[in-house]
Amino acid sequence: MFEVPKTEYETRLEALRSLMDEQRTGRFLLTNGNWFSYFTGFFYLVTERPAAMAIGPDRVDFFGPVMEGAHLKTQTTLVDSVTTYLDYPGETHPAKLFAKWLKGLKVGTKVGTDGATSFSGYWGYKGPKWSELLPRVKFVPMGDSLYPMRQVKSSNEQRLIRESIRWGDVAHHLLQKYTEPGLYDFDISARASLEASMRAKLALGPRFKASRWGMVPVHAGFRGQVGEHSVYPHSISIERKIASGDVLGSGASADIAGYNSEVERNLFVGKPDTRTERFHELAVKMQDAALGALKPGGKCSDADKAVRKFAKSEGLTGYLLHHSGHSIGLEGHEAPFLDVGDNTQVKPGMVFTVEPGVYVPRLGGFRHSDTVLVRSDSIEVMTHYPRDTESLTVGF
Amino acid sequence: MFEVPKTEYETRLEALRSLMDEQRTGRFLLTNGNWFSYFTGFFYLVTERPAAMAIGPDRVDFFGPVMEGAHLKTQTTLVDSVTTYLDYPGETHPAKLFAKWLKGLKVGTKVGTDGATSFSGYWGYKGPKWSELLPRVKFVPMGDSLYPMRQVKSSNEQRLIRESIRWGDVAHHLLQKYTEPGLYDFDISARASLEASMRAKLALGPRFKASRWGMVPVHAGFRGQVGEHSVYPHSISIERKIASGDVLGSGASADIAGYNSEVERNLFVGKPDTRTERFHELAVKMQDAALGALKPGGKCSDADKAVRKFAKSEGLTGYLLHHSGHSIGLEGHEAPFLDVGDNTQVKPGMVFTVEPGVYVPRLGGFRHSDTVLVRSDSIEVMTHYPRDTESLTVGF
Repeated sequence: MFEVPKTEYETRLEALRSLMDEQRTGRFLLTNGNWFSYFTGFFYLVTERPAAMAIGPDRVDFFGPVMEGAHLKTQTTLVDSVTTYLDYPGETHPAKLFAKWLKGLKVGTKVGTDGATSFSGYWGYKGPKWSELLPRVKFVPMGDSLYPMRQVKSSNEQRLIRESIRWGDVAHHLLQKYTEPGLYDFDISARASLEASMRAKLALGPRFKASRWGMVPVHAGFRGQVGEHSVYPHSISIERKIASGDVLGSGASADIAGYNSEVERNLFVGKPDTRTERFHELAVKMQDAALGALKPGGKCSDADKAVRKFAKSEGLTGYLLHHSGHSIGLEGHEAPFLDVGDNTQVKPGMVFTVEPGVYVPRLGGFRHSDTVLVRSDSIEVMTHYPRDTESLTVGF
Repeated sequence: MFEVPKTEYETRLEALRSLMDEQRTGRFLLTNGNWFSYFTGFFYLVTERPAAMAIGPDRVDFFGPVMEGAHLKTQTTLVDSVTTYLDYPGETHPAKLFAKWLKGLKVGTKVGTDGATSFSGYWGYKGPKWSELLPRVKFVPMGDSLYPMRQVKSSNEQRLIRESIRWGDVAHHLLQKYTEPGLYDFDISARASLEASMRAKLALGPRFKASRWGMVPVHAGFRGQVGEHSVYPHSISIERKIASGDVLGSGASADIAGYNSEVERNLFVGKPDTRTERFHELAVKMQDAALGALKPGGKCSDADKAVRKFAKSEGLTGYLLHHSGHSIGLEGHEAPFLDVGDNTQVKPGMVFTVEPGVYVPRLGGFRHSDTVLVRSDSIEVMTHYPRDTESLTVGF
């Protein structure tokens, strides 16, 4: 099934409880929506309304807006109690109600947190630091100990990411099929994404649904990386239509029980000229350099160092605009990073995007991103979309 | 044109500089992407990579990832210098480079900030507090003084929100047109959103483009508020197809130079039964109660109090799951809120959504949201979509 089994959530909570024992904290406070999802499978639309989960040695308590109280129960059975308030800011500020709730839980004098020491100033929220409300409780941010739990993906997580790749691939094929000069990038993107999402829904059955808010659960697009804008890795949008001769930067993914993957390619609108083709081939070789250097037991920095070395030897150093990749899972970018400065050990079960890029002003941005699983003795490139220039050329 | 004129950005920067004078701070530090947009018109995809703008008495300096350096220049001419680093975490942590950059700007010993005292722990970022890097500089969060600047919308902002409403309305009409039993909600949403976006692009011309990442710039949808899931205001998604007899919760908006609006309605799949129709009519009357109580010179709480009073008189109190509305502009939710606890004065130029809702378990959620402009002597409901049951019934 396309979900994380309850036993896995229990295992995750156990890992958190071990951390709590180590750190001698009787309760652990989560306030980031991603952690709610990770530990209990509850996905919700994060707003200015404060919400928190308190993890105890043998129970989980939730505090949040009443609109999420019943909604939570449709998604998880791991939460033992739900305490709600009507809305923010309310007659009594929710942070005060939170303090009362926490006091009622008899949390002791030391509470570990996912990093926060107050609710975050999101969408117009303002409120006090928790220490002002509960001066006798010490809130200790332990996010740095929490994040490493997510670095090595379980077999369930690997399975969900693999399913995400399958549908990202379908979406990307449709994207390429619909690409032609004279169209706006979002027209092609939206058509391909809708069709891929419908296919996924029909193939995976009723239980498949989006876990995060977005138009469709499977998506492919260009994000504005069209022609002269393909040199901006995060262009967002471009005013003009796609034209013959454009280098396009594309990408696709799918939300499978909240898990993401990534395949990114260049598409060429019409046969590319020699210079374009040359840079594209160099980008492919540069990605191969990264893939060749990424090994279980090595360091995350190895792949990026290999890319820098390759770039230097080919005179491309000035064309690099980012490092070589990042971890991926519940969030689109996660630590550790394939970056010269990240010496985290590469371990079996880690999942990375490998995506060094070459950005040539007035010519185009050249980047392929593949999603890679680290195995015990090697790496597996889980994405299969072709990378050769001919396969990626459309509109002949 | 569908943009904020440069003179308005200059006015905004002047207002910030007045605040700086008042607070005796020589520099003001922005690190939240929304503030970059608000003060300079630079929109970008926020990631784990730290970025900052330092506002001085007569200049604006930017620090951020190299991938945004040239991208920024395509969007704004208000930034005087751009200092970049390759990527996070890098050989030298970007927070250290940031500290060096700030030192070079000779910022003095007191720096106002938009609320932050470190870069935020987003997508795997971790880093030190700024005070650890620059112990002689006092970073003073002044977000609470900054936010009120955005509460009263300028005539330019009102114009952009009005244009957003126009296209949200088109999208919502298409959404209703395409709604029928047997379809998945995202199928209808994506088709309506794409068609509305294409129409907007053709009508508004080439300069119209999305400023934020999303599939399309104009969108309408159900967000999973289908049938039994319509009782969850933020349902996100539902597994099943739309069926005859369903109460649907719908909504539409458009991104016009980063500005948002909101129209939300109920749609009825087939003629609703008497009980459904009765609750729907009560929800309409409840919205009228809110609209009647929202007045320039009054308080934001007035509208919500009128709703509570109406709900009590009709025995609906137990069916309320949220307050009566929020401000809207560059962000989907902004302060102040139409909430019993928000006594902010209602001023001409403020723009609110007015959207009390009635959520009846096992029947449906009933809510209409309209976007309202406060004028000098009255309020103007800027959205025009019908609210009567007959107009909102589809699939007869």
